[in-house]
Amino acid sequence: MRNPFEPGQPKPKTEDGLFSRHEVGLANRNSGALLETLTRDITPTGTHYLLTHFDVPMIDETTHRLCFEGAFEAPFSLDMDEIRGLPVQSMPVTLECAGNGRSNMSPRSHSMPWHYEAVGTSEWTGTPLAPLITRAKPLNGVVDFAFLGADAGFDKGVPHAFGRSLTPEEIDALDVLLVWGMNGAPLLPQHGAPLRIIVPGWYGMASVKWLTTIRALTERYDGFQQVQTYRFRKHENDPGEPVNAIRVKSLLVPPGVPDWITRERWLREGPVTLQGRAWSGNGVPITRVEVLLDETWQEAHLTPPVGRYAWTGWTIEWAARPGRHMIACRATDANGATQPLEAPFDMAGFANNVVHRVTVHVAERT
Amino acid sequence: MRNPFEPGQPKPKTEDGLFSRHEVGLANRNSGALLETLTRDITPTGTHYLLTHFDVPMIDETTHRLCFEGAFEAPFSLDMDEIRGLPVQSMPVTLECAGNGRSNMSPRSHSMPWHYEAVGTSEWTGTPLAPLITRAKPLNGVVDFAFLGADAGFDKGVPHAFGRSLTPEEIDALDVLLVWGMNGAPLLPQHGAPLRIIVPGWYGMASVKWLTTIRALTERYDGFQQVQTYRFRKHENDPGEPVNAIRVKSLLVPPGVPDWITRERWLREGPVTLQGRAWSGNGVPITRVEVLLDETWQEAHLTPPVGRYAWTGWTIEWAARPGRHMIACRATDANGATQPLEAPFDMAGFANNVVHRVTVHVAERT
Repeated sequence: MRNPFEPGQPKPKTEDGLFSRHEVGLANRNSGALLETLTRDITPTGTHYLLTHFDVPMIDETTHRLCFEGAFEAPFSLDMDEIRGLPVQSMPVTLECAGNGRSNMSPRSHSMPWHYEAVGTSEWTGTPLAPLITRAKPLNGVVDFAFLGADAGFDKGVPHAFGRSLTPEEIDALDVLLVWGMNGAPLLPQHGAPLRIIVPGWYGMASVKWLTTIRALTERYDGFQQVQTYRFRKHENDPGEPVNAIRVKSLLVPPGVPDWITRERWLREGPVTLQGRAWSGNGVPITRVEVLLDETWQEAHLTPPVGRYAWTGWTIEWAARPGRHMIACRATDANGATQPLEAPFDMAGFANNVVHRVTVHVAERT
Repeated sequence: MRNPFEPGQPKPKTEDGLFSRHEVGLANRNSGALLETLTRDITPTGTHYLLTHFDVPMIDETTHRLCFEGAFEAPFSLDMDEIRGLPVQSMPVTLECAGNGRSNMSPRSHSMPWHYEAVGTSEWTGTPLAPLITRAKPLNGVVDFAFLGADAGFDKGVPHAFGRSLTPEEIDALDVLLVWGMNGAPLLPQHGAPLRIIVPGWYGMASVKWLTTIRALTERYDGFQQVQTYRFRKHENDPGEPVNAIRVKSLLVPPGVPDWITRERWLREGPVTLQGRAWSGNGVPITRVEVLLDETWQEAHLTPPVGRYAWTGWTIEWAARPGRHMIACRATDANGATQPLEAPFDMAGFANNVVHRVTVHVAERT
């Protein structure tokens, strides 16, 4: 097929904080969490963030099979009834899109313009993946396992099905789950039905949806989504480093009530309990959340997560005084990593974990 | 509280087809349907469009009550168990946001920048509303019933809870449903849990979510969302006409596969079955869908809707030849109303039912 990026196609004009029609189309189609639902341990079904590269495939689960193929000694395939008959595990996992916060970076990559909202926590149900790979007996010399989805299309002129890979060492280190359920119900089409993986502790691109095939490879997987994107790059010729574990981050439940357009917040003076969530990658615990109140960083109270890979809750009391305030929150994890005050630059806008800032207008109590 | 629109606040720069950061924030937060799911009679749960003016209230359904108050002779209130004990009715209804298509209008109102995707069809379950209003015995002189939600905030500097109204004649004419279920499951928080109304055949603003109160009024309801917005206005001083019934409209399931950013479509030459949906307001049937193929309008085959207020399916065969094509679809209803080829202008960008156009690249079969 032809390359959709014709020579001479004008570059979108997105300078000066403005956004293109294509970016808005992506924002309309993909959906972010509602920050007010961060009060809940589990994001309400239907409000977990969604980033769909191509189209959602509508798959008939009665005929769907997962195939283990390639450099396996004992390749096999399973239908959905067989997969649901395997040992069942459920796990709350906080997933975040690698592009979350892209729109807060300058200059900005022309892609899905997330502000802050590409995060969510669901209870995922399935079966551990590692025993199935062991059962298929990888041959000596296998260096990668490719996970191939049913979703396909073009990116930068390259036609491909969505695919990602994990090395044998990563399969050993990560608690990868082969998933068919979500929040106690069957997986929804837009979340990968009938079958996906969840790679806890990593950004969402690793958690391949609409999974059809796991292929053992004796050379590194070179699929588009593995090697041509999801890499940290500082300039055009930078080969870059792969994006994988989630960076430490936190969000605030915006207090008071919003203005419809600006989403700035309005509340009356007096005591208010602020709350939010914090999380980091690879199951590393959150050890501290600080909240910027009245221009001073103050330490919040942490509430334990509902699982190793789920976000931590936090609360803090604030005596809100009349005026316009900028509130911010900043998390630190057990590795000592802390959120930056300025967005870390990346060519494609990946993994921006700058602190979350919310403008609050406090009115006098009359 | 103070007006969030301070004097001197700069007008957003949104000329030249570009969009502001606030518009993108709304697009990230609100979510559109995925056009590929238009193949299904019922929109998959979690992908029905969502337009939330303020924050989603998290309501405890065990203590929630619906109050009938104001100019009733026999006012009463009901808890959720009592409401679920009333006669049960389920109804598939196609809902569309009044702002759908706003971004295709020029000049464009600064609000949620929907392209085409603010539509969906769910199976709503609840009980007919009209008998409950009769039971509360409206007093002589009642001219309006206000439906008040639990969601509140600011719009254009005016603090208010979301509310809308219907006249006694509209209650008689419309099959308004008091709803607690959706697609065979409890109503989700973001769709109005625990209780909302569905006003079939009207744009979505009438279907008040998080319903707390039905108030009988002897003067017309003057809530912000009833009188200060959702009106068709041609210029600043135009008092305008209320937005109510949905205008005739159709959408195409984009064929082939997409480019990630532009969403332009790619497929190989040969026969392809195109399909889509068409709907109109007030339960008026769709009588014709025409599809622009190879620069000729051709008549599609209609498949019956699953209910009076649900969209109609359509299909048409196309012999796709290599090249770049613009496909469009245009519906006509039993009243003879047809979609326009140019967007009808409205100050606030309401009810744009211009034809849906999709760019398709057809590659030679190699």
